[in-house]
Amino acid sequence: PFPKLSSTQVEKTLLPQLNQWALSNGLIMADKTSGSTAKVAPTTVFPTPVPAKVFEQAKNLQKTFNQLYAQVSNSEWLMEETEKLVHSDPDFTGKLYAMAKKSASKQTLKMGLFRSDYLIDQHSEEIKQVEFNTVSVSFAGLSSKVGEMHSFLNSLGAYDASGEMKMFYEGMGELPVSESSVFMTRGLARGFTMYQSVNSETKKEKAVVAFIVEPNETNLYDQKAIEFNLLRLYGIRSIRLTFEEALQDVEYSSFDDNKRMFHKKTGKELAVVYYRTGYTTGDYYSDDCWKAREFLENGYAIKAPTLDVQLAGAKKVQQLLTQDDVLSKFVDDEEAKQKLTKTFVKIYPLDDSPLGQEGKKLALQGEASKKQYVLKPQREGGGNNVYKSDIPKFLKSLDEKDWDSYILMELIDVKPSTENYLVRDGKLSREPVVSELGIYGTILFDAESIRSNEYAGSLLRTKPSSSNEGGVVAGFGTVDSMCLV
Amino acid sequence: PFPKLSSTQVEKTLLPQLNQWALSNGLIMADKTSGSTAKVAPTTVFPTPVPAKVFEQAKNLQKTFNQLYAQVSNSEWLMEETEKLVHSDPDFTGKLYAMAKKSASKQTLKMGLFRSDYLIDQHSEEIKQVEFNTVSVSFAGLSSKVGEMHSFLNSLGAYDASGEMKMFYEGMGELPVSESSVFMTRGLARGFTMYQSVNSETKKEKAVVAFIVEPNETNLYDQKAIEFNLLRLYGIRSIRLTFEEALQDVEYSSFDDNKRMFHKKTGKELAVVYYRTGYTTGDYYSDDCWKAREFLENGYAIKAPTLDVQLAGAKKVQQLLTQDDVLSKFVDDEEAKQKLTKTFVKIYPLDDSPLGQEGKKLALQGEASKKQYVLKPQREGGGNNVYKSDIPKFLKSLDEKDWDSYILMELIDVKPSTENYLVRDGKLSREPVVSELGIYGTILFDAESIRSNEYAGSLLRTKPSSSNEGGVVAGFGTVDSMCLV
Ligand SMILES: Nc1ncnc2c1ncn2[C@@H]1O[C@H](COP(=O)(O)OP(=O)(O)OP(=O)(O)O)[C@@H](O)[C@H]1O
Ligand SMILES: Nc1ncnc2c1ncn2[C@@H]1O[C@H](COP(=O)(O)OP(=O)(O)OP(=O)(O)O)[C@@H](O)[C@H]1O
Ligand SMILES: [Mg+2]
Ligand SMILES: [Mg+2]
Ligand SMILES: [Mg+2]
Ligand SMILES: [Mg+2]
Repeated sequence: PFPKLSSTQVEKTLLPQLNQWALSNGLIMADKTSGSTAKVAPTTVFPTPVPAKVFEQAKNLQKTFNQLYAQVSNSEWLMEETEKLVHSDPDFTGKLYAMAKKSASKQTLKMGLFRSDYLIDQHSEEIKQVEFNTVSVSFAGLSSKVGEMHSFLNSLGAYDASGEMKMFYEGMGELPVSESSVFMTRGLARGFTMYQSVNSETKKEKAVVAFIVEPNETNLYDQKAIEFNLLRLYGIRSIRLTFEEALQDVEYSSFDDNKRMFHKKTGKELAVVYYRTGYTTGDYYSDDCWKAREFLENGYAIKAPTLDVQLAGAKKVQQLLTQDDVLSKFVDDEEAKQKLTKTFVKIYPLDDSPLGQEGKKLALQGEASKKQYVLKPQREGGGNNVYKSDIPKFLKSLDEKDWDSYILMELIDVKPSTENYLVRDGKLSREPVVSELGIYGTILFDAESIRSNEYAGSLLRTKPSSSNEGGVVAGFGTVDSMCLV
Repeated sequence: PFPKLSSTQVEKTLLPQLNQWALSNGLIMADKTSGSTAKVAPTTVFPTPVPAKVFEQAKNLQKTFNQLYAQVSNSEWLMEETEKLVHSDPDFTGKLYAMAKKSASKQTLKMGLFRSDYLIDQHSEEIKQVEFNTVSVSFAGLSSKVGEMHSFLNSLGAYDASGEMKMFYEGMGELPVSESSVFMTRGLARGFTMYQSVNSETKKEKAVVAFIVEPNETNLYDQKAIEFNLLRLYGIRSIRLTFEEALQDVEYSSFDDNKRMFHKKTGKELAVVYYRTGYTTGDYYSDDCWKAREFLENGYAIKAPTLDVQLAGAKKVQQLLTQDDVLSKFVDDEEAKQKLTKTFVKIYPLDDSPLGQEGKKLALQGEASKKQYVLKPQREGGGNNVYKSDIPKFLKSLDEKDWDSYILMELIDVKPSTENYLVRDGKLSREPVVSELGIYGTILFDAESIRSNEYAGSLLRTKPSSSNEGGVVAGFGTVDSMCLV
């Protein structure tokens, strides 16, 4: 159910309230031209209805997914499969693989701060997985804030079309606020505490969480929410380092062989290295960035994530996990396997295997095919996918021997809605939109065991259905919250 | 004690942290050109040392001052004295007086949200009262936030010049966070609840606090903090109305003679009318603004403040209260009277009384006088005072019969410091500054009794000592917090 406000009510009455709440409560994006100003983050005006049972289902699956990807990251199999991708993508996957291969860190603990993304198939009303993100997942901070904002607007009576300031959504249970801002913080804090407990001489005030960041981050305030929570809820301090700063300002311990890492200027030990960059080629804008990644990987801090955890999030791995024989390597429990599989849509490799042959045929059919497909390379961060009828032409522009680093994924049939409004840069728009549900999870593990594995909140992103990409920061999408129905 | 950071440390390391905390937590000012952006409010970089005993003293006096001004507002004496000011200021004091005189509201309860401002005399180290504000006192919201920010920067280790991220201020008691944001909200909430309890059929969800505001308020987010607290802590909703909107959109009850006020669009009853405008001539920019003030004054809502409470805050009243015979009319208790008097500096009228004659003589001496003086008209909001040697020339430009609406006040001898930094519009400056301590108070009363009377938090404002005016919004001053020493 959506409020029935007129567009005048939305623009004149609701929008100022929305802007003012957002600016007053840090639901904002950085202004690239000035450090002392900020602007409202892209959001929706209303929360978007999501069936309660769909949300429950996605939430209940998260720990199983966390564990699956943890086990993948621990496997020899991952390294073998990744090696096969190197020839067609030597500059990115190739480099990550080479570093992972020779990594010699004495730290056995690894951390995953994950987000599994879903679309809802409009026929079955079931969640279908878009992708599983294992590195630098964003919006855990802003997701909680947009939920608070929608709840505030409801409490204020701003969603009442009669103008009588009644609450449009009645029960508070209907508008859950995502716990992601505190739960993802808790994940990092668990890593920090575990690091301390194994290095018993590392006092809390002598160690930090190092956020590895882009030099000019637009989505800064999403990250700041986590930094502030770390300090406020756990008394844990953080520092922010670009790759280049990390290389210059961090050194290994001289007093042992563990390569414990110390920030030279402050003398603080890096307990956790938390990547909010490093997932795409452009993030390694100089040779020093690559050196920094390797330096950090080999150090003793707990990495969120390690290279192998990052590689486990490859699109190719996602494709392979849809094959029963592969999934069975990692998941014994038949029921768990079924639950995971139910969220998968068909994904084809584009190689010389029988399934790959089939994939190639479907890919080249383009629109002619009964089903619709999206072609995805080994990339993250949006803007790399090729859709539907664009696929044949795109593939033909490539050397066929490189096709095997792409996957061909069935398009999830999601129902666009025209009842919400998007607000971007202070401007309203109303157009057909689709919403993508993200479920956060945190996991701390080593080769032997899982130390903690938790659900960590949710995210709803809403974007024009005309845009195939849903990146909020890139300017296409908005942060939304759920109204459970 | 001030942190010993180099100016490079302040600029490169601390300032970005300060900006980011401020933007993320609503320590901001509105951007007049866009509703979807905001900028960091003017603040200091460090908290400013204030002797703990001085703060205690100011705090302990607040309820006595609240009560004093409440009694003044109830008195015939106030009306008589105000009448004498009319001839020289017919357009402002005159109009307020005329409306107060014929006010016929059936509401007997009045509310004061006050702030008593002090400077510290550098010789005695005692507080001396600058003025007592009875209308539209600001910064209760931002004051709490700047304290939280300074505490955050301390916890982060950002005040440690060694770069080792140690906490510069040790105990948390040293950096008290002003309770003004919640305590001033509580004051309004008490008024709201009292209104409900005497009009038992007024349900909480059917009534609101009406903020009477300027059309384009720069200090919007200070007010929003109170609005959000009202809803979050008390479930009380508010609406914002300019004078013109109030006149157009509010109507008296048709079903009784009490002139209960209802907001036409929402149907909500105005339980409390809270003025954040109306204290200076420019706030009444059209005839309708004056009409609105009168309309609201005569209505049944509890006003914060009523016209008489506002008039009690006149500079002339402040001058008269420094005379023992006048103060004794309102304060019986000898000890209380002494405590109040101790915070007064000498203030002269400029009339034909013996004290007035003396005042005129001193005023015309200018710099030649041993003591230094400031000349103040019956105005609020800054920018109206005349200082030191400018006084004789200014007075001579006036008709002598109008001098009696001015007061001549001894300048408080405050010690400038050069150890703090001011941040305004993202730019740092370091120059001699002085700090003014404000103590908030809330009081709810009628002609018979005081229903509640409370201390309501503190404010420290710091401004260049070269500027004689301390208005934060006007661009001269900054919001600061205390480090108790
Ligand atoms: N199978 C699919 N069906 C429908 N839409 C899809 C599908 N796969 C991807 N999309 C759309 O394309 C967007 C980008 O795809 P995906 O998330 O896999 O790419 P990415 O490069 O990893 O981007 P990012 O990491 O920034 O989210 C998705 O958010 C979704 O809107
Ligand atoms: N007696 C005094 N000694 C020293 N400085 C003074 C004195 N009186 C006023 N000032 C300075 O002038 C400023 C403005 O004076 P005051 O607060 O009385 O004026 P105002 O017009 O009521 O301003 P506002 O209501 O905006 O604070 C004070 O903040 C203070 O810095
Ligand atoms: Mg994605
Ligand atoms: Mg992705
Ligand atoms: Mg003042
Ligand atoms: Mg004043």
